[in-house]
Amino acid sequence: MREFSLIEKYFSSQTRQRKNNHTALGIGDDAAIINVPADQQLVVTMDTLIANVHFPAETSPHDIAYKSLAVNVSDLVAMAATPAYFLLSLSMPAADESFMKAFSAGLFEAADKFNIALVGGDTCKGPLSISIQASGFVTENNYVTRSGASIGDKIFVSGQLGAAALGLAIIQQKINLTDAQTTHCVNALNRPEPRVDLIDLLKKFASSAIDLSDGLVGDLGHILTSSDVGAVIDRNKIPACLGLQVHGLFEYALTGGDDYQILFTVADDDLTNLIIAAGQLGLELFEIGEIVDQGYVLLDQDKSIDLAIGYSTLRGFDHFDA
Amino acid sequence: MREFSLIEKYFSSQTRQRKNNHTALGIGDDAAIINVPADQQLVVTMDTLIANVHFPAETSPHDIAYKSLAVNVSDLVAMAATPAYFLLSLSMPAADESFMKAFSAGLFEAADKFNIALVGGDTCKGPLSISIQASGFVTENNYVTRSGASIGDKIFVSGQLGAAALGLAIIQQKINLTDAQTTHCVNALNRPEPRVDLIDLLKKFASSAIDLSDGLVGDLGHILTSSDVGAVIDRNKIPACLGLQVHGLFEYALTGGDDYQILFTVADDDLTNLIIAAGQLGLELFEIGEIVDQGYVLLDQDKSIDLAIGYSTLRGFDHFDA
Repeated sequence: MREFSLIEKYFSSQTRQRKNNHTALGIGDDAAIINVPADQQLVVTMDTLIANVHFPAETSPHDIAYKSLAVNVSDLVAMAATPAYFLLSLSMPAADESFMKAFSAGLFEAADKFNIALVGGDTCKGPLSISIQASGFVTENNYVTRSGASIGDKIFVSGQLGAAALGLAIIQQKINLTDAQTTHCVNALNRPEPRVDLIDLLKKFASSAIDLSDGLVGDLGHILTSSDVGAVIDRNKIPACLGLQVHGLFEYALTGGDDYQILFTVADDDLTNLIIAAGQLGLELFEIGEIVDQGYVLLDQDKSIDLAIGYSTLRGFDHFDA
Repeated sequence: MREFSLIEKYFSSQTRQRKNNHTALGIGDDAAIINVPADQQLVVTMDTLIANVHFPAETSPHDIAYKSLAVNVSDLVAMAATPAYFLLSLSMPAADESFMKAFSAGLFEAADKFNIALVGGDTCKGPLSISIQASGFVTENNYVTRSGASIGDKIFVSGQLGAAALGLAIIQQKINLTDAQTTHCVNALNRPEPRVDLIDLLKKFASSAIDLSDGLVGDLGHILTSSDVGAVIDRNKIPACLGLQVHGLFEYALTGGDDYQILFTVADDDLTNLIIAAGQLGLELFEIGEIVDQGYVLLDQDKSIDLAIGYSTLRGFDHFDA
């Protein structure tokens, strides 16, 4: 593979045009140089996406690139960090120029949208795999973690759940939906939108946060473990995407991954201000439950389901067979 | 793969013990938080190593981890940056605990040696592949690039060349050497030592620098292109490793990769101070040529070989057949 010429054509030249004011030295040397503003801390995350593990191999190169950056930016959002720069390591079986062209288009579409600059990385021959390390900034100690939830805090999710998992089930031909629902769900799977519009709200009001990559039950579990608290959530308040409601597949909203909405907790004292601020921004948020002393329970009408003993309690509930 | 329990056992717990004073929040959340000293710029690099592409699949997990971190730290050294933190993305075919144990031992041996802290990343199922993003610090604008070489600068390499390429040829059974030479060369391939001992010297005296990952001729070529200059180097001054000299395989020193010595240029005015400083540190440096206006020439006794037209000129010279 003539690594250098392909990188130059599809990455380096575009990257030079898109240097932001944090990039002192961009792509093309042994390393890049970043200016970190004096009052800011750096927030760093890294996620790898592998063909047939994290996305179906037939996913378009444009979508693969878009999603690879989106899931990393989502981790920054969950910390209430403002995206700043990223590095890319792209491994692919052959120097396929049409792949590179579509991939770089998807990558830069996402980078422009999330306002994050590519500053370096490498391209090499190997099984299709994309590693991205993304970094953002927060004003000192003004970040949000998984460990800040307190008893009495209300639990919120930032949008509808389950569409991405449903999209995967459709692609795997486990489920048939209408064309419109199929488009919506497959799009949710392939083009997740990290909630960069929530960063300021999270910074001001969230006591804890996590992005929903593994599914609501598991990811809320991470907050509970880190914060050493319990939770009660209400099935009827969980915003399952329309396809799930129609087809009785509610568990996809509980355990389906890849939604990249933000799950966060807010102290009682901050609730009114959160709701006012969200209203001003035109953002719809969903209060789904409350942090309690211990235990992990899903209320469903007159039933009370123990989530603490694991996902297994959810299997067989409705038609969940993933 | 029970990702969480393995990461906890072999990475997270050790990482928590090794937090350095730059780590405000380490592994275990959606992202880590880094304190960047106010007068420092951040130097960022990322390299992926893939089984059977960057290392033979039979390489020990300990060595794979060591080398993966070493090659990234070498990029920081080439910029004269002091290593600070890194993120790891490890993909492997199965949750093999003995692999993880040896891999993490090699990784932390290297991290301790190079004084760099693991702060995050992920582990997933997939073909064996290691992506590392490493970051370091430099005092503002006190970094070294490929583009600073000027006419009249002397060209240096920091140590013997060719042993790693010879090690690969031995593993591939293309060459037979003595046991002692075999050990030396295979070790050079599998356990490269990034020249962290050169960082201060480079910062003070180098006008340009690059680490020798692709081979002397190609990597010096990068400096010449970036700096828009030419070079004359002298075959008799190039420190080829002993095995090459004995077996007439000198081209391995010219085009063999993976040595991770530093190639750098120094202005005439700084030469005396460089030599004094290197002497005080007990470091042996090798002056191999000079930056000129244009052209790229290797002097060999009475011959003058044009390197500008590509590596092809070197094929057939001695016994080069890689």
